[in-house]
Amino acid sequence: MNPIATRPRVIIIGSGFGGLFAARALARADVDIRLIARTTHHLFQPLLYQVATGILAPGEIAPATREVLAHQDNVQVEMGDVTDIDLDARTVTAATLGVARTYGYDHLIVAAGANQSWFGNDQFAEYAPGMKSVDDALELRGRIFGAFELAELAAAAGRDEEAEALTTFVVVGAGPTGVEMAGQLAELSRRTLRHDFRHIDPRTAKIYLMDAADAVLGSFDESLRDKTRTALEKLGIDVLLGAKVVDVDARGLEYEDEAGERHRIEALTKVWAAGVAASPLAGRLAEQVGLTVDRAGRIPVRADLTLPGHPEVYVVGDMVALDNLPGVAQVAIQQARYAASRIKATLGGKPVTEPFSYFDKGNMATISRFRAIAEIRRLKVTGFPAWVLWLGVHLVYIIGFKSRVTTLLHWLVSFLGRGRSERNITEQQIFGRLAMNRVSDLPEKAGRNVGWLPDGEDQGS
Amino acid sequence: MNPIATRPRVIIIGSGFGGLFAARALARADVDIRLIARTTHHLFQPLLYQVATGILAPGEIAPATREVLAHQDNVQVEMGDVTDIDLDARTVTAATLGVARTYGYDHLIVAAGANQSWFGNDQFAEYAPGMKSVDDALELRGRIFGAFELAELAAAAGRDEEAEALTTFVVVGAGPTGVEMAGQLAELSRRTLRHDFRHIDPRTAKIYLMDAADAVLGSFDESLRDKTRTALEKLGIDVLLGAKVVDVDARGLEYEDEAGERHRIEALTKVWAAGVAASPLAGRLAEQVGLTVDRAGRIPVRADLTLPGHPEVYVVGDMVALDNLPGVAQVAIQQARYAASRIKATLGGKPVTEPFSYFDKGNMATISRFRAIAEIRRLKVTGFPAWVLWLGVHLVYIIGFKSRVTTLLHWLVSFLGRGRSERNITEQQIFGRLAMNRVSDLPEKAGRNVGWLPDGEDQGS
Repeated sequence: MNPIATRPRVIIIGSGFGGLFAARALARADVDIRLIARTTHHLFQPLLYQVATGILAPGEIAPATREVLAHQDNVQVEMGDVTDIDLDARTVTAATLGVARTYGYDHLIVAAGANQSWFGNDQFAEYAPGMKSVDDALELRGRIFGAFELAELAAAAGRDEEAEALTTFVVVGAGPTGVEMAGQLAELSRRTLRHDFRHIDPRTAKIYLMDAADAVLGSFDESLRDKTRTALEKLGIDVLLGAKVVDVDARGLEYEDEAGERHRIEALTKVWAAGVAASPLAGRLAEQVGLTVDRAGRIPVRADLTLPGHPEVYVVGDMVALDNLPGVAQVAIQQARYAASRIKATLGGKPVTEPFSYFDKGNMATISRFRAIAEIRRLKVTGFPAWVLWLGVHLVYIIGFKSRVTTLLHWLVSFLGRGRSERNITEQQIFGRLAMNRVSDLPEKAGRNVGWLPDGEDQGS
Repeated sequence: MNPIATRPRVIIIGSGFGGLFAARALARADVDIRLIARTTHHLFQPLLYQVATGILAPGEIAPATREVLAHQDNVQVEMGDVTDIDLDARTVTAATLGVARTYGYDHLIVAAGANQSWFGNDQFAEYAPGMKSVDDALELRGRIFGAFELAELAAAAGRDEEAEALTTFVVVGAGPTGVEMAGQLAELSRRTLRHDFRHIDPRTAKIYLMDAADAVLGSFDESLRDKTRTALEKLGIDVLLGAKVVDVDARGLEYEDEAGERHRIEALTKVWAAGVAASPLAGRLAEQVGLTVDRAGRIPVRADLTLPGHPEVYVVGDMVALDNLPGVAQVAIQQARYAASRIKATLGGKPVTEPFSYFDKGNMATISRFRAIAEIRRLKVTGFPAWVLWLGVHLVYIIGFKSRVTTLLHWLVSFLGRGRSERNITEQQIFGRLAMNRVSDLPEKAGRNVGWLPDGEDQGS
């Protein structure tokens, strides 16, 4: 019944850069691929902050995985959460809606990525959501635009202090995601929203970018870090370095400076872009081969990306601790292609002996419209040329022609114009989450006034 | 402090066609407008089905109300749920996140619209969501695309009966929304998804369009109804007329035919596009002036759209029972403009005596790409010419230039190509709603198998 039943079975776990590019690299291989992922889409994570800030729609950065692979006949895509891998039995167990099933494999590529990490303070997550999934971005979108709505009401009622806390945004983590998020919050408040309100001036919104380290974009060259910091400050962003977050609650956040002094910022909207932790599958694999994961939960694979004693199992991308490689798309893509090429070579009977080596194509981050930084080996580019480079590279890497065209159009509208078309707050957010986080969790003031909204007096102007 | 404090205060309730067009029609009036709405967007409801079926992003049909009105200085937009209107005191009470406030008015335009109605069977709503809000559309989007994902898993495990129920869709209500939804489900399954799966053939998905009445598009001319029905059947849609839904559950739906016989359809995904009920505010108003609302909860206003004894209060749009006018955008828009013109005339000291009269610009519905029907007074248009007309009219009425451009582009991609870019299922839907509706609510079969998914056996092909 199944004509491909006798071909070698390759299981790929994950539909991120690692999983998707592994599947594509095996397009012409005589194998039977099963790609299992928790979500039904491939997520172009570097642009997630644009979904959170209302520029792009989720579909533009998250095409359905099975659509991307529709015409690759040797792959089947399956929605499922991989709960276990048994290296000895060579099986993967996946569950969907609580129902588990187990599949055998001949080759395995594990590309389950990383989740946000609050460094052991998971209770922060409710008040300072991460930036790793489409859900995160939509949650933040609702919170950001919702905060301005609530601030308008607070200001109309003369509660300026509350309005200020509602228009204060703290981004924790000054890596590329944090820098881009803070930059877009500045663009949003200074440009997009400037004419939209009557009682608040969105241009006065306070934006903090905070990191425990002593530089922004720590992984970049020092000259670029300094330029980025200056550019961010010109946008009106307060850059707080050497600032370690020690507490987060509904109304704000506390941090310790380098002198050990504690400070508090009253801010309703917090974004956590600080740390990542590899998928727990890395730990499950490490256990079985006697390895120990590093602080970020990553597994120290062999130089050929396999596990000791298991040349049929590759781990790629953010789950891997190897040569201090950064957790970026390029690493995952190159590792995925390397793993795929080894599998193909094995099938052809020609074992590959060269270890994986990373070719650093460079690194970039946008700061605001028309302004970015990029380093391509020794070349450092800043300002408009870097931004054009950023634009080109991102358009090339976005999956699919349509996404490219609509995304370019949304960028034209947002960068040349002032608009953002994706500003929706769902009713679920207004009546569910927003209400939960913003009101019932807040200590109640006297009477009916819960502190963040005008009270019941006649405001009829 | 407030330079406009002495101008007449106009409160508008609602940001739909009625509310938004009333505000715009008062753009040059020397008044102080407060527009209060539950959601922060204006919703272009006629295209909601395209959000549900993955063609458009919410932002394209739901621009932020305050963005649309950003440059109209005499209006302030406020997120709030109007909980009460006191006609004698001339006050409106609104609540946001549980905090109430009361505003006085000199003129009031109530345009709170209508909600979905399950005709007294609100327990159906969980299994057959309505099609009235962005939340509804996103919920249905997740259910529709999720159903195909689950069907692929069921078919892979050889559970064909389950796969069939998972790829069976029932649309209840054969008005324009129901017809357009059914048509798009056909396009989606027959064209968009045809290459995406390995174990199911989406082209065999069953689509039912059901109505208790004996015709589709009851409000249209008979010749158009027949043509629509034929066109739908050509698309492979089963049109069931004279079919009254008597029960809906997680797994399917039961209906009574005209002979009083009961039938059951096994279908995981049900869409309710059958009835509407006016906002409860209509009832609150009716009480205060001694009127009775009709079966759909609408208030019988005077010929000038005011309430008896309250020439300062207008009710417009879907809340109004007047001359059997249909619940369409044109009626709401024209009523809103009429109310605004009367308010302006009153301000100028020239009372208007002409009653409201509706100018029927015509009516249209799409069936599938390149195919629509339209009636413009005596003129009946079908097929491609009607579709071109539909395209033009909808592009003109979509608010804002950017929305027009991106929407046209998404249409090009969807109608000329095959793709749909907005196919996302959120994780919340996968792990929350989908799981809830699809599994835990279903009677459990033997052992770990809950019925809609492959069980735990090794499926390794």
